[in-house]
Amino acid sequence: MKKLTVGVLGATGMVGQNYIRLLQDHPWFLVSHVAASPRSVDKTYAKAVNGRWRMNDPYSEDVGNLIVHDAADVTMAKEKCDFVFSALGMEKSTVRTFEERYAAAGLPLISNNSAHRHTTDVPVLIPEINPHHSAIIPIQLERRGWREGFIVAKPNCSLQSYLPPVYALMKAGYLVKSIVVTTLQAVSGAGYPGVPSLDMIDNVVPFISGEEEKTEREPLKILATIEDGRFVYEDSLNISAHCNRVPVVDGHMACISLKFKSDKPSLEEIIAIWNAFGGEVQELDLPSAPHPPIVYREENDRPQSGRDRHAGNGMAVTVGRLRACPVMDIRFVALSHNTVRGAAGGAILSAELLCAQGYIGG
Amino acid sequence: MKKLTVGVLGATGMVGQNYIRLLQDHPWFLVSHVAASPRSVDKTYAKAVNGRWRMNDPYSEDVGNLIVHDAADVTMAKEKCDFVFSALGMEKSTVRTFEERYAAAGLPLISNNSAHRHTTDVPVLIPEINPHHSAIIPIQLERRGWREGFIVAKPNCSLQSYLPPVYALMKAGYLVKSIVVTTLQAVSGAGYPGVPSLDMIDNVVPFISGEEEKTEREPLKILATIEDGRFVYEDSLNISAHCNRVPVVDGHMACISLKFKSDKPSLEEIIAIWNAFGGEVQELDLPSAPHPPIVYREENDRPQSGRDRHAGNGMAVTVGRLRACPVMDIRFVALSHNTVRGAAGGAILSAELLCAQGYIGG
Amino acid sequence: MKKLTVGVLGATGMVGQNYIRLLQDHPWFLVSHVAASPRSVDKTYAKAVNGRWRMNDPYSEDVGNLIVHDAADVTMAKEKCDFVFSALGMEKSTVRTFEERYAAAGLPLISNNSAHRHTTDVPVLIPEINPHHSAIIPIQLERRGWREGFIVAKPNCSLQSYLPPVYALMKAGYLVKSIVVTTLQAVSGAGYPGVPSLDMIDNVVPFISGEEEKTEREPLKILATIEDGRFVYEDSLNISAHCNRVPVVDGHMACISLKFKSDKPSLEEIIAIWNAFGGEVQELDLPSAPHPPIVYREENDRPQSGRDRHAGNGMAVTVGRLRACPVMDIRFVALSHNTVRGAAGGAILSAELLCAQGYIGG
Amino acid sequence: MKKLTVGVLGATGMVGQNYIRLLQDHPWFLVSHVAASPRSVDKTYAKAVNGRWRMNDPYSEDVGNLIVHDAADVTMAKEKCDFVFSALGMEKSTVRTFEERYAAAGLPLISNNSAHRHTTDVPVLIPEINPHHSAIIPIQLERRGWREGFIVAKPNCSLQSYLPPVYALMKAGYLVKSIVVTTLQAVSGAGYPGVPSLDMIDNVVPFISGEEEKTEREPLKILATIEDGRFVYEDSLNISAHCNRVPVVDGHMACISLKFKSDKPSLEEIIAIWNAFGGEVQELDLPSAPHPPIVYREENDRPQSGRDRHAGNGMAVTVGRLRACPVMDIRFVALSHNTVRGAAGGAILSAELLCAQGYIGG
Repeated sequence: MKKLTVGVLGATGMVGQNYIRLLQDHPWFLVSHVAASPRSVDKTYAKAVNGRWRMNDPYSEDVGNLIVHDAADVTMAKEKCDFVFSALGMEKSTVRTFEERYAAAGLPLISNNSAHRHTTDVPVLIPEINPHHSAIIPIQLERRGWREGFIVAKPNCSLQSYLPPVYALMKAGYLVKSIVVTTLQAVSGAGYPGVPSLDMIDNVVPFISGEEEKTEREPLKILATIEDGRFVYEDSLNISAHCNRVPVVDGHMACISLKFKSDKPSLEEIIAIWNAFGGEVQELDLPSAPHPPIVYREENDRPQSGRDRHAGNGMAVTVGRLRACPVMDIRFVALSHNTVRGAAGGAILSAELLCAQGYIGG
Repeated sequence: MKKLTVGVLGATGMVGQNYIRLLQDHPWFLVSHVAASPRSVDKTYAKAVNGRWRMNDPYSEDVGNLIVHDAADVTMAKEKCDFVFSALGMEKSTVRTFEERYAAAGLPLISNNSAHRHTTDVPVLIPEINPHHSAIIPIQLERRGWREGFIVAKPNCSLQSYLPPVYALMKAGYLVKSIVVTTLQAVSGAGYPGVPSLDMIDNVVPFISGEEEKTEREPLKILATIEDGRFVYEDSLNISAHCNRVPVVDGHMACISLKFKSDKPSLEEIIAIWNAFGGEVQELDLPSAPHPPIVYREENDRPQSGRDRHAGNGMAVTVGRLRACPVMDIRFVALSHNTVRGAAGGAILSAELLCAQGYIGG
Repeated sequence: MKKLTVGVLGATGMVGQNYIRLLQDHPWFLVSHVAASPRSVDKTYAKAVNGRWRMNDPYSEDVGNLIVHDAADVTMAKEKCDFVFSALGMEKSTVRTFEERYAAAGLPLISNNSAHRHTTDVPVLIPEINPHHSAIIPIQLERRGWREGFIVAKPNCSLQSYLPPVYALMKAGYLVKSIVVTTLQAVSGAGYPGVPSLDMIDNVVPFISGEEEKTEREPLKILATIEDGRFVYEDSLNISAHCNRVPVVDGHMACISLKFKSDKPSLEEIIAIWNAFGGEVQELDLPSAPHPPIVYREENDRPQSGRDRHAGNGMAVTVGRLRACPVMDIRFVALSHNTVRGAAGGAILSAELLCAQGYIGG
Repeated sequence: MKKLTVGVLGATGMVGQNYIRLLQDHPWFLVSHVAASPRSVDKTYAKAVNGRWRMNDPYSEDVGNLIVHDAADVTMAKEKCDFVFSALGMEKSTVRTFEERYAAAGLPLISNNSAHRHTTDVPVLIPEINPHHSAIIPIQLERRGWREGFIVAKPNCSLQSYLPPVYALMKAGYLVKSIVVTTLQAVSGAGYPGVPSLDMIDNVVPFISGEEEKTEREPLKILATIEDGRFVYEDSLNISAHCNRVPVVDGHMACISLKFKSDKPSLEEIIAIWNAFGGEVQELDLPSAPHPPIVYREENDRPQSGRDRHAGNGMAVTVGRLRACPVMDIRFVALSHNTVRGAAGGAILSAELLCAQGYIGG
C-alpha cells in the first residue's frame, strides 16, 4: 500500500515536533510537507529546529531535509501532501481562517487548535467515543461548498484522561448526571518555553488560563447528537473542573467524583465495563489504537503521572482508585499522556479513523 | 510573667523539631524537657539530633544542652515541665497508652497524633473554630479521675486548609450540605525520610494512606456539639476527599466544591465573610494567632503552595479563586502550611488558648 | 539619624523586587523613588507589579503608593533620592549609558548589571574582600568630571559562593595558583520567566550563557591592585569554571578544587582561618553584614542549597566538605544565596560600606 | 541458537528489576531463575514484587510466574541456569562470600556489587575499554580451583559517563595525567526508597557515601595491566571527584577538567577521536552494544540529563561542551544512563562479551 503523504502545519513548535516524532515510521502516513511561520521559511527542517528540538529521539534525515514552507502557502501544501495536521500556534481568529483555507483547497485537516472546536459543523473526535461524528463531514463539505477538504478537531488534552472512562459507563447504559473533576496537569501541556521553572519548583499553580472552560464544555460536544446537520450538545450533564499545574513533565491526572442519573453500577461492574471497553478503532486495529484503551490498575496508589503515562505507547488511559463517593456516587483517578494521546497522538488516531471511514485518501 | 515550662515528646523527629523551632523565643512557653525513644536517651538533644536536624535555623544552645529522657519516663516529665506537646511516632495503641499516662500524672498534653482524635471525651481543636470544645476537659478529668492532666488533640494537617473557610461560612449562617475536596499535599507531611524522591521527581501519587478517611471524618468532630458530656458528631455534612501527594516541600493545597443546605451567599458576600472572619484567639491576640486567619487573594492564580504557605508566619489560611460551581454551589482553592499551622504551630496555638482559658498554668 | 533616600532602577523586575523587599525597614535607607521601563511609568508601584510580584512577603504600602518614573528621567531621580541601585535589564550598551547619566547627574549608583564591571575606573565590590577599592571613586570622579555621582558595581552571583573562602586563605598568606570550580546554580539567577520548567523538571542544563567567562574573569578584578589610578588585574591566578543550572529555586552551590602557589595550610588551619574571617563590614557592624561571613559546617553532607542558603539572613557563605584534593591541593563545597548575597543584598551591603566610608551621604 | 538461561540474584530490588526489564526479549539470554532474600522465597516473582515494581513497563508473564528462590540456594541456581547476574544488596562481606559460592558451584557471575571490585583476580569490565581483562578469568579459575564458574564485576555507575571519553583519548595515544571531575548524579542511583524527597525537592546534596572513593579508584583498575596473573593498577593518573546528588530521576552527568601528560590533541582532533571511537563490542555488534558508544553533541547546552540519557537505548555516553581549560588542558561534560549503562545494561553487555569470548556458554 502506498503511504498517504501528510503535512504538518506549525511543524517547528512543540506539538509539531511531537507529530514529526510520532509519524516516524508510521505504516500509513509519510511526512512530505512541513510548514511554519515566515521566520523558518526556506530553511531545511533541520535548520529550522536547530537548538529548539525538544524530543528525546532525533527526527529522521528525510524530515530534516524537508524545506519549511510558509503556513500561508496553501497551494504548496496541496501540491505536497494528501492531508494535513494543524498545530498552528497563532491567534484564534487567524488559525480559523488559515484552517478554512486549507480545507477549501481540498485538504482534509485535523487540528489541535481550539479555534474550530465549537464550529457547528466541525466534529471534535475522541475516536473511541464518537467515531460516528465524522458523519457531519459531508454536511460540512456541502454547506461550505468544499470538495474533499474538511476540518476535524481534537479536543483539549485535559479531557482525555477522564472522558473515556466516563463515556464507557454511559455506553454501558449508566447515564451520568454530574462530574466534579480536579486535574493535576503536566507542564508540557503549556508548550515551550511555557511555564517558568520559578513557578514549578516546589510549587503548584491552581490556574490554567481557559482550561476549566474547555474541560467543562468540550465534552458536551463530543457527546452531542447530530440533528438537522448540526451538533446538538449534550445538555443534561454538568461538569465542574478545577485545573492545576503541577511539577510534572508529561501526564495529565484527574481526580473525578461522579453522580449517575438513575441506575448505578456496582464498583465491580464498573471495572468490568472499563476492562471490556473498546471502540471502532480497536476493532479495526488501527495503527495507533491502544489495546486496551482503558487500563485499570488494582494497586491503591495508581495511576501515577510518571509511571503510567506511557501505557499503550502513551495512547491508553490508566484508571485506578475506584471507590464510592460519600457526596456523589463514585470517584476515581485517571491519567493520560498529554502530548501523546492528548495531542498529536490523538489526532493521528483520528486521521487513521478517517482513512478507515474513507474520508481521507478514499 | 514567668514562662510556663513545656516538654516535647518525640522531640527528635520532624514534628518534634518543628516544635523546638517554633517554641524558640516563645513569649509564654519555655522548652525545659525533651523526650524520645530509648536510642536517644541520656544524650544531649544536640547529640541526639546530630545529622538529623532538618530545620533551616539551628536550635538554641539551651535546647541543645537538654538531656533527652525516655518518653516512657512520665515521672521525669512531671518534674521537668508544666505541660507537654506529644509528637510521639509509635504505633497508635502505644501512643494512646503513653498519652493517657502523661495526663494521669497531671500533665496537660496536646497531641499531634491521631490516636485520641476520636476518643469521646478528647477535644480536637482548631482554635478559630471550636475553642468552646475545651469545655469537655472537666468532664474528661472527672470521668477518668485525673487531676490536672488531660488530653487535647489537633486534627490532621489536610483539614487545616479547607475547614476554616468552610466554617466561616457556617458561622455566618450558611449551612453546608456537602463538600468534594481534592488535596495536593506536600512531602513534609510524611515526615523524614517519608516519601522517596523516586516517587516525587516528575510524578504525582494519588494516594496517602489513611488520609482521606481523616479528611472526611475529623471535621465532623470539630463541628460537633457536646451533649451529656460527649461529642455528638455533625451528621448532616458529607465530605468526599481525594488526597494526592505532589512534589512540593511544604504547603497543603485543597480544591473545594461545596453545596449549601439552603441559603446561598453571593460570591461577594463570601469574600466579605472570609475577610471579616476571626475567633477568640484573634480577639485575645494570642502570640501565635494569625491576623487575619484567612487571607483572600484576588489574583486568579493564587494561592500557590510555594508563595503563600508563609502567610501569617505560616499560621494563616490563604484562599483564592472563589467562583460558582456548575455542579455544586461554589468552588475555591485553599492553602495552609502543613508543618506550621497544620502541625506544631496549630498545637501551640491550642496551648495558648488553653492557657487563656485557664486549663493550663491556671 | 535621618535615613538616606534611595531609588531603585528597574524596580519592577526580579532583582528590583528583591531590592524593595530587602530595603523594607532598612535602618539607614528609605526607598523614595522607583523607576522602570516606559510601560510601567505613571502607574503606582502596586499597579506596575500587579500579577508580577514574586516575593513571598508583600511590599509596604508606602512603596506600593510610589509612582513609577521613567528610568530615563534622571532629573526626577536626582530630585527624589540621594543615591540609586541599578537593576536595569536593558542591553548592555544602553545600561552603560544610562548608568553614566545617573552618575553625571550627581547620584551615586550601585549596579547589579555587568555593563561596567570591567570599566577601568569602576570598582567591583565584595565588601569583605576589597573595601579599599572604593579608593578609585575620587579618581573616577576626577577623570569624568563628575561631582558626587559615581558608579560602583557588584560582581556576578556565581562568584559569591567561592571567592570569599578562597580570599580568606589568600588574606592569611596562602597564595592561590589555580582553581577548578563547578557551579550548581539556582533558577532564580535567570530572573523571571527565566528558565522554562520543561528544562528544569528531571533535568540539568550544563550551560549558562556568559556565566563561565564572568566566573573566571571578575575575581581577577576584585583581587586587583590600583596603580596609577587604574585597576591592575590579578594575573597569576587561573580559574576554570563549569557552570550548570539545576532544579533549585535559590542558592548557588560551588564545588572547588584549589592549588596553592607555595605554602599550603593544613585542613585544620584552613577551617580556623574561615571561622576567624571577617572584614571591615563586620568590624563596623554594618546593618546587612553577616556575622560570621563564612559559616563552616562540619557535617559531611553540607552545605545544601535548600538548607543553607538562608545562613546569616542569606548574606553568609556556607562552606563544608573541606578535604585534600588528589589532583590539586584542597577541595571543598561553598554555597551562597544568589538573590540575596549574590544580588540585591550584596549591593546593599556595598552601599552601607560606601556610607561608612563617606562616599554616600557624606 | 538456543538461548542461554540466566539467573538474577537480588531480582526484586531496583537493580534486579532493571535486569528483568532489560533481559526481556534478549536475543541470547532467557531469565530462568530469580533469587532474593528469604522474605520473598517461594512466592511467584509477580507476588514478590507486587507493589514494589518500579519499572515503566510490566514484566513478562513468564517471569512473573517464576518462583523466587533463596539467594543462598546455590544448588538450585546451578540447576536452573547457565550463569547469573548478581544484584545482591546485602553487606559487602556477605555478598563476597555468596558470590564466591556461586562461582565455586560452576556458575559464571557478573556482579553489580562493589564487594569484589578490588579483588586481585576479578576483572572490572567496561567492555569498550578493557575487554582483554577477561584474560584474568583462567587465572582466577586456576588459583581458586574453580571449574567453569568465575566472578566478573562491573564498575560504579559514576565512572560510566566520564571514563569512556577519557579512555578514547588514551587509546589514541594522548596520555592523561590528571582529572578533576564533578558529578551531578540522579536519585535512581541510590535505589528505592533511596533519597528522601525532602532532600531532593529544591535541594542539592553534595555528598554520596563512598562514591568519590569509587570514582577515583576504580578507573585505575579498569586501566590496569595484568602482570604475573595480577592486576597492576594504573598509577600515573590522578583523579579528584566531587560527587553530588541532584533532583533528577535518571542520568549521571559529569563535568570534567583534564590534563594530558605530554602531547595534547586539538579540540577538533578530540571530537574526531570520540566520533570514531569503538571497541570489540561494536565490531562484534553485540546485542546491547551502542553504535556509536560515544555521541558528541555540538550544541552548547548538551548533554542534558533528561534529554540525553536515552542515547543508544541508554547504552551510549553523550559528550558535549568540549573546550580548553584555563587550569588544566581541556574540559567537557559527559552523561550516561546510570540504571542502564551504569548498572544492569552494562553488566549485560559484559555478559555478551564473555559469551563472544567463550567464557560463558562456551
